[in-house]
Amino acid sequence: MNEKAAASESAEDRLIARHFRPLATHPGAFGLIDDAAAIVPPPGCDLVLKADAIIGGVHFFPDDDPATVGRKALRVNLSDLAAKGAAPIGFLLSLALPRDIDDTWLAAFAAGLGEDAAAFNCPLFGGDTDRTPGPVMISIAVFGAVPHGAMLMRSGPKAGDVLVVTGTIGDAALGLKLRQDPAAAGRWGLDRAGRDHLLARYLLPQPRNAAAPALRRHATGGMDVSDGLAGDLAKMCRAAGVTAEVDVARVPLSAAARAALAAEPALVEPALTGGDDFEVIASVPEAELEALTAEAAATGVAVTPIGRFVAAGEDGPRAIFRQGERTLAFARPSFSHF
Amino acid sequence: MNEKAAASESAEDRLIARHFRPLATHPGAFGLIDDAAAIVPPPGCDLVLKADAIIGGVHFFPDDDPATVGRKALRVNLSDLAAKGAAPIGFLLSLALPRDIDDTWLAAFAAGLGEDAAAFNCPLFGGDTDRTPGPVMISIAVFGAVPHGAMLMRSGPKAGDVLVVTGTIGDAALGLKLRQDPAAAGRWGLDRAGRDHLLARYLLPQPRNAAAPALRRHATGGMDVSDGLAGDLAKMCRAAGVTAEVDVARVPLSAAARAALAAEPALVEPALTGGDDFEVIASVPEAELEALTAEAAATGVAVTPIGRFVAAGEDGPRAIFRQGERTLAFARPSFSHF
Repeated sequence: MNEKAAASESAEDRLIARHFRPLATHPGAFGLIDDAAAIVPPPGCDLVLKADAIIGGVHFFPDDDPATVGRKALRVNLSDLAAKGAAPIGFLLSLALPRDIDDTWLAAFAAGLGEDAAAFNCPLFGGDTDRTPGPVMISIAVFGAVPHGAMLMRSGPKAGDVLVVTGTIGDAALGLKLRQDPAAAGRWGLDRAGRDHLLARYLLPQPRNAAAPALRRHATGGMDVSDGLAGDLAKMCRAAGVTAEVDVARVPLSAAARAALAAEPALVEPALTGGDDFEVIASVPEAELEALTAEAAATGVAVTPIGRFVAAGEDGPRAIFRQGERTLAFARPSFSHF
Repeated sequence: MNEKAAASESAEDRLIARHFRPLATHPGAFGLIDDAAAIVPPPGCDLVLKADAIIGGVHFFPDDDPATVGRKALRVNLSDLAAKGAAPIGFLLSLALPRDIDDTWLAAFAAGLGEDAAAFNCPLFGGDTDRTPGPVMISIAVFGAVPHGAMLMRSGPKAGDVLVVTGTIGDAALGLKLRQDPAAAGRWGLDRAGRDHLLARYLLPQPRNAAAPALRRHATGGMDVSDGLAGDLAKMCRAAGVTAEVDVARVPLSAAARAALAAEPALVEPALTGGDDFEVIASVPEAELEALTAEAAATGVAVTPIGRFVAAGEDGPRAIFRQGERTLAFARPSFSHF
């Protein structure tokens, strides 16, 4: 009957055991042999919950390195935890696999995912796998912890707060353009390193979880920039009921993005609206700015003030982007699938 | 600038506001205007986590009533909470929508989902929506609570425990067969009510959350039956290191399933292996059986003893199905997508 017992262990069970059990390092995941996981919430903490999915041909290219796809799927969720000031606890994974996904792809995908699960201290708690007639889809639900009541909210910014952003803006949007039109590298005067930088920033987000504790200590509000700085900042303004004034000249750009914008000034629009930045925007009282900047820098995360929150005018809360004397108007301030 | 502010509110934001905000009734969901939700874990409780997805053309038919699809997506997850003895807290939703899904479909889907979110006290905490070139996919991650350490485990059954099952087994698998081959209703001698009963059991699971508190009080282990009784019970046996002996004659069948099996005795195999039952199997000490049965019955859930857990033999833990003198051997004991 051992044969029968082995036969009743389905191919799905074996797939999970081989590729995903190594990621389920938390005792509450029970090695993925139960239907569900159980976690003891950290005392005095709120649980922060978020779900985000990525789909082949929509959020990544079907021929992308599967290890990178696995890392990206987790990182887009980790970025939200960073913006909320939350420490990762773990994640659930729902995987829809077309028939042309083979074991080699899955092994590389799981290895990449596992590498980041370990690096960000965010183990796998469970999930499910299904066959799909459509493209590969990776749905992740992530859990984090913040001290009770301390989650950084979109509605947090107060008039007078400084608006800061982590890292650099626009790289991923320009990287996507380069992916779609490789000849643009020449027009933009990019060397190989510059081109590779932009391509890599599209391929693999760099979520700012290292800076989350500093953000939580010093910021009044936070949000991750995933659909473009202009649109996401406008959302934050609406949630907070304040207006943000951004000095576009202060928006941090990588050397490659600076070169591209110098060659084609109209690229400022995709840089500010294109999405996939996975940086954090936060509101910080003037008196906290120096401490935040120093503590974030100590974790390797640059924090740059780019403007200020002010009382909303008669026309309601909004995000204003000033470039010298001009106020920029964007045809499409935010990426939207709909 | 109000126009601009309105324009910067994307179609995705409007879709979420119109269809899904009404489901986000918990204050920690912040009306879905933040990136993430925050919940205060119930004191003294563990959090139970589970994710399961359903895909159009795989787990439901593309022309199924969208309200039913919404309810099924949540119920397959609620069923796991029931089997773990957990009370629902809420869920996250990742929705991948093909272009042919229109607002009418979404409104009905959200209404069905919302009806069950309210009925099962399991509100929406957040999620995301994306366009997909593939079929509609609904990924849900659900959270529940159990008193610390009290989650019913697959590994819980002890030799000597009685094996019980809620509700009836095999209806959904027979309902799926009827959906694929409507003429079978005639061969099986079903009247309209019998046929409708089986079809409805495939279309819409009846998760046993009402019985979860009684299960938690009296059972030593639990698991939901989603991939077929034979295969899921075998999984439970392997996790617990015990063998289950099932008296097939005692497996509870609906009147319609009894009629079908009387007409075509070979249907016992799909009934026991076909999946989509969304009933609970549990292990119960003999002394607790009467109390469990009575308390579950008081919540409208039938609990039926169908066998016993015994020490595993030399050939290891396994599930044995006895029909009179015969031991049934199944070609494919469990549904698997792989």
